[in-house]
Amino acid sequence: MFSKTLTSCGVLRALEPWHAEEFAAHLDRAREHIRPWVGPSFVTTDVAGARATLHRYAERAARDGAGIYGIWVAGTLVGGVMFVEFSTATGSFEVGCWLEPGAEGGGHITAAVRELLAYAFDERGMHRAEWRCRSDNERSSAVARRIGMSLDGVLREAWPVEGVFHDKQVWSLLAGEWGARARD
Amino acid sequence: MFSKTLTSCGVLRALEPWHAEEFAAHLDRAREHIRPWVGPSFVTTDVAGARATLHRYAERAARDGAGIYGIWVAGTLVGGVMFVEFSTATGSFEVGCWLEPGAEGGGHITAAVRELLAYAFDERGMHRAEWRCRSDNERSSAVARRIGMSLDGVLREAWPVEGVFHDKQVWSLLAGEWGARARD
Amino acid sequence: MFSKTLTSCGVLRALEPWHAEEFAAHLDRAREHIRPWVGPSFVTTDVAGARATLHRYAERAARDGAGIYGIWVAGTLVGGVMFVEFSTATGSFEVGCWLEPGAEGGGHITAAVRELLAYAFDERGMHRAEWRCRSDNERSSAVARRIGMSLDGVLREAWPVEGVFHDKQVWSLLAGEWGARARD
Amino acid sequence: MFSKTLTSCGVLRALEPWHAEEFAAHLDRAREHIRPWVGPSFVTTDVAGARATLHRYAERAARDGAGIYGIWVAGTLVGGVMFVEFSTATGSFEVGCWLEPGAEGGGHITAAVRELLAYAFDERGMHRAEWRCRSDNERSSAVARRIGMSLDGVLREAWPVEGVFHDKQVWSLLAGEWGARARD
Amino acid sequence: MFSKTLTSCGVLRALEPWHAEEFAAHLDRAREHIRPWVGPSFVTTDVAGARATLHRYAERAARDGAGIYGIWVAGTLVGGVMFVEFSTATGSFEVGCWLEPGAEGGGHITAAVRELLAYAFDERGMHRAEWRCRSDNERSSAVARRIGMSLDGVLREAWPVEGVFHDKQVWSLLAGEWGARARD
Amino acid sequence: MFSKTLTSCGVLRALEPWHAEEFAAHLDRAREHIRPWVGPSFVTTDVAGARATLHRYAERAARDGAGIYGIWVAGTLVGGVMFVEFSTATGSFEVGCWLEPGAEGGGHITAAVRELLAYAFDERGMHRAEWRCRSDNERSSAVARRIGMSLDGVLREAWPVEGVFHDKQVWSLLAGEWGARARD
Repeated sequence: MFSKTLTSCGVLRALEPWHAEEFAAHLDRAREHIRPWVGPSFVTTDVAGARATLHRYAERAARDGAGIYGIWVAGTLVGGVMFVEFSTATGSFEVGCWLEPGAEGGGHITAAVRELLAYAFDERGMHRAEWRCRSDNERSSAVARRIGMSLDGVLREAWPVEGVFHDKQVWSLLAGEWGARARD
Repeated sequence: MFSKTLTSCGVLRALEPWHAEEFAAHLDRAREHIRPWVGPSFVTTDVAGARATLHRYAERAARDGAGIYGIWVAGTLVGGVMFVEFSTATGSFEVGCWLEPGAEGGGHITAAVRELLAYAFDERGMHRAEWRCRSDNERSSAVARRIGMSLDGVLREAWPVEGVFHDKQVWSLLAGEWGARARD
Repeated sequence: MFSKTLTSCGVLRALEPWHAEEFAAHLDRAREHIRPWVGPSFVTTDVAGARATLHRYAERAARDGAGIYGIWVAGTLVGGVMFVEFSTATGSFEVGCWLEPGAEGGGHITAAVRELLAYAFDERGMHRAEWRCRSDNERSSAVARRIGMSLDGVLREAWPVEGVFHDKQVWSLLAGEWGARARD
Repeated sequence: MFSKTLTSCGVLRALEPWHAEEFAAHLDRAREHIRPWVGPSFVTTDVAGARATLHRYAERAARDGAGIYGIWVAGTLVGGVMFVEFSTATGSFEVGCWLEPGAEGGGHITAAVRELLAYAFDERGMHRAEWRCRSDNERSSAVARRIGMSLDGVLREAWPVEGVFHDKQVWSLLAGEWGARARD
Repeated sequence: MFSKTLTSCGVLRALEPWHAEEFAAHLDRAREHIRPWVGPSFVTTDVAGARATLHRYAERAARDGAGIYGIWVAGTLVGGVMFVEFSTATGSFEVGCWLEPGAEGGGHITAAVRELLAYAFDERGMHRAEWRCRSDNERSSAVARRIGMSLDGVLREAWPVEGVFHDKQVWSLLAGEWGARARD
Repeated sequence: MFSKTLTSCGVLRALEPWHAEEFAAHLDRAREHIRPWVGPSFVTTDVAGARATLHRYAERAARDGAGIYGIWVAGTLVGGVMFVEFSTATGSFEVGCWLEPGAEGGGHITAAVRELLAYAFDERGMHRAEWRCRSDNERSSAVARRIGMSLDGVLREAWPVEGVFHDKQVWSLLAGEWGARARD
């Protein structure tokens, strides 16, 4: 029912359980490309798995503030952003993203992340945004940098992929910084 | 994060558990006015009760397609619309509404209901919309009529309020009728 | 443990999860005959499915007043009646039925429905009985008529069966009418 | 809906959550009399507690074969019998009872227990009935003896009441014994 | 993290869900040997079944005092003991055991049972220990006797194994007896 | 049943729901001292709250590897350590601690943390230990340093206490480092 046109001209919408078939078809295009960078439970292989992911987010949205949002370009779901965590008790939230290869370079992720930050900081009064990515995921850390985030640290060997433990960067942006800088 | 400006100039947004305080304040203005026309569990008297209502809808939204949406006028929550039921198995859904007295006459409800119908019929491919109201609720049956609905019947004495059993009208609009007529 | 001999000479008993094998064998005789007229989840194809139906009713019976009752003729389960809904909050309940073809014409359903009405109106003090059937289910609407019910309306195209949307009649009987007329 | 007239002329019916007020009023008459002989959770002091007991039995009835049944004499609930356990996996079940003081001496409990045994052995094909009571509860052990049960043993100090540990008798009746003897 | 060297030189540890593979391998060695004497749900045939058993005990441990403990000899899991029931409300608990054939004769079970009794009586202040076994399980009743337990009775035909109903002994030991005698 | 004498001469035991009264009495001595450094849900004010904390840990222990352990000195519970997180999927776990003021300076925490590390790394094969504390909690960061951990980063303003957002340090120790160094 609701949508938002991004500055990148993509369209952002809540991604809900009834999108399961569309989400599964998108994962078929995105799977191998995103597998190294996202959690293993996200890379499902059929409609039932896709529905389970969306259902899990819907249940968490009912309990707290987690949420998942798709980006559509010319009517096709090409990726999205999510609140991985959203804790009103601590004022902290974590933003994540994923994108199929054909949609890279359009600025969709940066634009969509800005919408989540605006919502969390301006509408919900949150205090601290977090962005976590593998240290060797240059596309992802570039988003954090572009948004104006600072690197808080590197969690050493915290991210196992097929037996190899990768470092994990933690970036942050505080409410005051958002007001001053990142919004532009 | 998302909103939609209605043709009535009100603003429609998903009404979520974190709106509990705003919803409770609105209920203080609406309570006595809407009490005869809505279910008793909707007319709560404090923030905890308001949060429980919103939480119940959020949980049902995660399971099926129920949902509740607020209408804001000049930044104030004045009422809303909801999917009371939303069954993709049968293709039927039921729409409901409520409004505080000061916001009546602005066409907000009719405009918001049209948004729900557009979503259900056009985006979700549903087949049959239902509208249920007490037979003596003339404001409510006027909305059904304005939307182009037909009266399917009157459920005799199906709605008890303080010991008196009121008749309940059931109105409907089918997908084909929506396409031809009601959208205008 | 308990049973009731119907005026039709059938025997009415609570239908419980431990009847699953007997219920499944009965469904084998009833399945194609009742499929067009009952909900899809009722027409299961094996003992596990039959047990799931009975278990679902047992759980609802523990929560509210729903219940399912079998009719035995000469020791064989041939059909039954149920409280599809039973809301003490509104005083309304809905009665349903099903029967295998060989047992038709014996008056079992009408007799069993009268027992449910007597229980709901006389023992439980309910206010309104409902009966819902496809408009083209003449056997079913004949039961409603025989019981003395009134047709409250026709829910247009509310009942999809294999892609075709059928109209659904809603019949009712009020407590006062039961006292005066239908009991005879 | 269902009832059974006992040989004692009492009437046996399933005791269900909606009987909560009637059950609570009965407990007011029975409480001090039965307190030494039943579990502490059974002796509730208000309608909410009575409803909780009945609800717990209803939920267990939906899961397995536990069940609780009231005895009415001249329209008043005076006591009852129950399946404390009912395990189709082992073929064993345990029967219990309680009675308010004014109804003692009428043979209601023995008659009602015989109905439970007939149901469990004859309808459900169970193998072993159990009866457990405090060793100094002579009324209760007399029921076991009258039914034709054998004393399997005495669980020493297994039943604490206000700091004193009482012995607990375990009586049993096997399916073959039921057929031969106890039914008479 | 924790362990206790038994007087038999075996080592006792809590048996937890993460031991599932080790437990399954042990069951492969123990299965046919213990099958006649333990409940059917205990004799699982794969890692998933073994994990389910351990998970069930872990969940019950969180709710009440049930618990399961393995015995390791020379680094190999060879059997164990458990609190089948542990009711602080009545002060009673039931202890059980199992062992693979190669580890018999070492006194491991008796030593481990003594640890459970010491914990229940001395640390938790329980009042009555129970031991239940098939009457023809001489190894098991020998443990009860060695511990100083008394035979409370024989539950006739309470234990079905493949269609045959076996008698079940109930042994007990009271807190006072533990203090005086069994500890030695 | 199980315990472990620490190198500090304190005694480490699993802290379980039945310790609720002892835990509540300990919190009375520790509350104001630890309040600035632990999560708000940990600082409960009565036995029911203490039991809820222990029950929550027990339930999580049944699901995954979280766990809470008390430290007793001369028979008195003075503090403890816990696995705040324990993810076998990623090989990472987080250790936390608390202590009442009178027990400070005895080396109990460092000794207890070493036991948790030994268990997680040596018995469970985990890969990465984490320690999180407020940046101005010098006692806590001293433990991390003493254990041989490295500071991975500082999560800026991630820890709100009464309206002030404090920085949060993240320390880590990898399996290889544990083997080489920290064990000593």
